[in-house]
Amino acid sequence: MQTAILLYDGMTVLDAIGPYEVLQSVPGVEVCFVARERGEKRADFKRLGLTADYTLADVPRPDILLVPGTPFPQAVTGDPEVLEWIRAVHATTTWTTSVCTGALGLAAAGVLAGKRATTHWLALDALTQFGAMPVTERVVRDGKIWTAAGVSAGIDMALALVGEQFGAAAAQTAQLIIEYDPQPPFDAGSPDKAPAPIVAALREQFGKLLQG
Amino acid sequence: MQTAILLYDGMTVLDAIGPYEVLQSVPGVEVCFVARERGEKRADFKRLGLTADYTLADVPRPDILLVPGTPFPQAVTGDPEVLEWIRAVHATTTWTTSVCTGALGLAAAGVLAGKRATTHWLALDALTQFGAMPVTERVVRDGKIWTAAGVSAGIDMALALVGEQFGAAAAQTAQLIIEYDPQPPFDAGSPDKAPAPIVAALREQFGKLLQG
Repeated sequence: MQTAILLYDGMTVLDAIGPYEVLQSVPGVEVCFVARERGEKRADFKRLGLTADYTLADVPRPDILLVPGTPFPQAVTGDPEVLEWIRAVHATTTWTTSVCTGALGLAAAGVLAGKRATTHWLALDALTQFGAMPVTERVVRDGKIWTAAGVSAGIDMALALVGEQFGAAAAQTAQLIIEYDPQPPFDAGSPDKAPAPIVAALREQFGKLLQG
Repeated sequence: MQTAILLYDGMTVLDAIGPYEVLQSVPGVEVCFVARERGEKRADFKRLGLTADYTLADVPRPDILLVPGTPFPQAVTGDPEVLEWIRAVHATTTWTTSVCTGALGLAAAGVLAGKRATTHWLALDALTQFGAMPVTERVVRDGKIWTAAGVSAGIDMALALVGEQFGAAAAQTAQLIIEYDPQPPFDAGSPDKAPAPIVAALREQFGKLLQG
């Protein structure tokens, strides 16, 4: 089962790496990193490069598509070539998935029209401009489309997807390999749990950026 | 505050990327990826490359050191040059940290002698051969040394470290940015929670590999 993870300059790395780490542990899953051009793509704040081993043309029919997010959604929504590839491969995927604002990429490609979907909490409103129905849940499945909330939610989504496709034992095995027994030292991981001033500060800082 | 994350061929990518994503969101933290040579390092199962922008010599006095793990601990424990760098930078770090079997790297460098530490559940026994005291906890702090359990535990460790160094608000902000409100669909993330046959199968598959 071929999984294509899209890379691009400006991506948020954990969006891609959470699901990658879960999926690569499943026997029979092949994970490949794909970009418009082969070679290094730089992360959102330029502190890290990841290598795309394959071009979009190299991977025309992945079974699973994963589009990671970015604080700069135009990096995907403003790239016609990438949007066309998303649209094309979605036609034949088993599962089409996104993490964080990667959902805006799926949406801009037309894939989420009329679909229930989620994204980073700061970007939920932006989904409506593409005709998607925003849902405040950590992982949302609508038919063959799975969308995850912000950044770290991709781990939960990937485990759910592996459970659906390969059975509970495969997902539990992946979970135990990555020892995913979360014990966050604070309880501030969603806007309804975090202190209000922190929520407000992030809305101020990133709110406009994430509108697709 | 300079954070050096060690890269090497064979590393488990999420070990590095969980903490990176937390730390890079904190104002005043500079994260750099360091390796014996500048350039691409390939992940544990060769499906992805990450770029080291800096050599060990480029980063002689990081404030925070992070050593990620690997299914092949010899990649670190068998590299005298990397061990010497770990030993040298540890002398002046504010915090020395590891994720997963990265602890075996710290241990082989002599940093964990007589210290309480943790690592991936499959590698806990191996810590004793270097004089460390294995602890079955997700995040262990002994003085300025923080060690995290397997792979995903680095996220929890980084949040705890940020809380300690920069205060609760900084950690809560980082947690909310990455929307870390975990909701794993299964409860199999530690050997005492996962089904026994899955624990046994992973011991069989990886147990010998992870002995340092």
